[in-house]
Amino acid sequence: MVATDIATRVWNHTFKLDPIVRSLLDTDFYKLLMLQMIRGLHPDVDATFSLTNRTASVRLADIIDEDELRAQLDHARSLSISHREMIWLAGNTFYGTRQIFRPDFLEWLARFRLPPYELRRVDGQFELRFEGRWTDTMMWEIPALAIINELRSRAAMRDMKRFELDVTYARAKAKMWEKVQRLQKLPDLRISDFGTRRRHSFLWQRWCVEALKEGLGEAFIGSSNVLLAMETDVEAIGTNAHELPMVRAALARSDEELLAAPYRVLAEWQSYYGGNLLVVLPDTFGTAAFLRGAPQWLADWTGFRPDSAPPIEGGEEIIAWWQKMGQDPRDKLLVFSDGLDIDSIEKTYHHFHGRVRMSFGWGTNLTNDFRGMTPTPNPGLDPISLVCKVSSANGRPAVKLSDNSAKATGSAAEVERYRRVFGQGVYDRREVLV
Amino acid sequence: MVATDIATRVWNHTFKLDPIVRSLLDTDFYKLLMLQMIRGLHPDVDATFSLTNRTASVRLADIIDEDELRAQLDHARSLSISHREMIWLAGNTFYGTRQIFRPDFLEWLARFRLPPYELRRVDGQFELRFEGRWTDTMMWEIPALAIINELRSRAAMRDMKRFELDVTYARAKAKMWEKVQRLQKLPDLRISDFGTRRRHSFLWQRWCVEALKEGLGEAFIGSSNVLLAMETDVEAIGTNAHELPMVRAALARSDEELLAAPYRVLAEWQSYYGGNLLVVLPDTFGTAAFLRGAPQWLADWTGFRPDSAPPIEGGEEIIAWWQKMGQDPRDKLLVFSDGLDIDSIEKTYHHFHGRVRMSFGWGTNLTNDFRGMTPTPNPGLDPISLVCKVSSANGRPAVKLSDNSAKATGSAAEVERYRRVFGQGVYDRREVLV
Repeated sequence: MVATDIATRVWNHTFKLDPIVRSLLDTDFYKLLMLQMIRGLHPDVDATFSLTNRTASVRLADIIDEDELRAQLDHARSLSISHREMIWLAGNTFYGTRQIFRPDFLEWLARFRLPPYELRRVDGQFELRFEGRWTDTMMWEIPALAIINELRSRAAMRDMKRFELDVTYARAKAKMWEKVQRLQKLPDLRISDFGTRRRHSFLWQRWCVEALKEGLGEAFIGSSNVLLAMETDVEAIGTNAHELPMVRAALARSDEELLAAPYRVLAEWQSYYGGNLLVVLPDTFGTAAFLRGAPQWLADWTGFRPDSAPPIEGGEEIIAWWQKMGQDPRDKLLVFSDGLDIDSIEKTYHHFHGRVRMSFGWGTNLTNDFRGMTPTPNPGLDPISLVCKVSSANGRPAVKLSDNSAKATGSAAEVERYRRVFGQGVYDRREVLV
Repeated sequence: MVATDIATRVWNHTFKLDPIVRSLLDTDFYKLLMLQMIRGLHPDVDATFSLTNRTASVRLADIIDEDELRAQLDHARSLSISHREMIWLAGNTFYGTRQIFRPDFLEWLARFRLPPYELRRVDGQFELRFEGRWTDTMMWEIPALAIINELRSRAAMRDMKRFELDVTYARAKAKMWEKVQRLQKLPDLRISDFGTRRRHSFLWQRWCVEALKEGLGEAFIGSSNVLLAMETDVEAIGTNAHELPMVRAALARSDEELLAAPYRVLAEWQSYYGGNLLVVLPDTFGTAAFLRGAPQWLADWTGFRPDSAPPIEGGEEIIAWWQKMGQDPRDKLLVFSDGLDIDSIEKTYHHFHGRVRMSFGWGTNLTNDFRGMTPTPNPGLDPISLVCKVSSANGRPAVKLSDNSAKATGSAAEVERYRRVFGQGVYDRREVLV
């Protein structure tokens, strides 16, 4: 393991470009799984991804220099997957499966480059869009978010002195350790790093992953970040994301096709992957609607990932559905991944322990929790709710309803139509902090 | 400034010898000032220095490997002052004085090497003695203490994992910063690092000095450590120590000479140094006795360093004496240096502020405060009260009474004789923690 004095590094990066994304594998593992399927089944679909800053009060374009942002995005476009990385992808076992990536996909991936981007400043925010084939544009989501979040961190720390930086990282490490000590008290915990997109910085995410690896041992099951999984020798973690049902739904030619889209996607998934990769993400158009129409075969899948419902209510809803479908929840897996931090992890763990298998995907509050860590208050280091979502497919608008209406995306008219087709959700609007 | 990731360094030092003392200037500045005077006035006096561990419950010889200790002591003996260091000593201004070190002394110092040592294990402790000319043996005090203290730290951390080490240093930095923030609230504070002998490690002391330099600015007046003063470009701080009156007293041929010894020493000092170096260390045989017999000319000196009385009572005693001698205490300096930490610094500062000039020499609790910092309790990192004192001069026993009888050294018979000659002190015995 190479240990880096993070404070020194931040202090020193006055050179032209300190690359934020150093590898195309510095992305979430599920992107690669989805990409293989998209390339196999939907190679000609166009999909546009767009940046949205849900924390509108933070005027990103006033904080981040546009030229710096372009330099980082351009640098990411210069990357391709290295020989060493290709060997690792081809030779490694993921989720217990050898050669999960097929040779023709890997051959294609070896030539992959990120497509062009469109960047404009509009009213203090960046309008950042990626247009083109779904197979190309979807790979921008994670690096684009990581770049903007880290450029914002750097801007917030630009005027800090050497010792202030050192103490800030020292405090953040101490705070992180308090969390680790609490997690150590949860027997048979299973937790992973899901913090790539919102991370404070690459080096800090690496520190967090290495810290969890040493501090939690077996309880730390891995990282969603492919590069860090490779570098720190932990498992790569992740299954599928909202973009699959969102694109599928956008392409639907009738309300009937729209209603069936979430299940069609999962049938396709099943044709590519098995075992612990069979995890349902049910909330794209509301979990209640999803479960009402869910076919029996989905009850045989390994688990569900409730991603926008409150974790306890969301988990109970899925357990009740499993029981209705004749399944024993103790054989099933719930993956929690929405805005988790130590309190909600503990609460959720204790609530469900013994009744269902659980794992936790810990994101923003793992890799970007610098609140209160600076010697003088620095709100520029507080995490924001920045997303990069598919906004249209083949020119048709894409929509997400979610179990929290604050997370809904899409035009008002389309959201209205989807709500009519899928029905209203059962959860209230809740503030989205991260 | 070269920033070192301390945790990484500690983790990595599995190579044969990670030298603790890397330079003969890694010692306290007052040693050099005293050495110049001793060489000039007492070049033929023999003085034996001996190690005493006042924290007897810590069995050092069970913790520290004797071979490692010998290797470190032998390494220190291999050192001489480098060309670059000699230039700095000759060319620098100390306490506002150019060429404070005379050319013939520097010429002699350039050839200086530490003399042999005698090391034995006795009942779980190390018996470590340095015999020979005072001009040679006195230079062992600081490196010997620094070596043993750091070997003990290393032993205490040997089984800690990478992340535990990192978190330990992170927490220690955060704790240190809390102290700095409190010190920032004290206007016209003057504070210096006196922590060489008891430091956790060389790298940690360097971090503390750099942190104080950045965090306190002008309020941080420098370090007693000559090497760190040179490397971090701060003032070298220090005046004189107990060994001067102790040796002088041991050589006295009558009770009258004994009683006069503390003042004879200061008259000698005055023949070598002036200005802010005229600081009286009054407690060697009890401050009350010292002040009773003190000549008028001592009232003209810049200040006093009460080193074993409780700071407020000790300071008041000296202020009362100045007033009795017709001096205005607001023109005078009190240097506090005994077991200080943030609470006692604040309390002493507020008590005397506006009535007298003050400066603080912050030692063990600056450079070795790891209490409660490790993820699991590790009392091996708690500082201990280890001293290396002159024990005899020209074969005659040396004695220190001090204002705290727990700090008295010397044979019972000699201590009794000194108490008869100087009279009893006015302070109670107090536990010596550091």
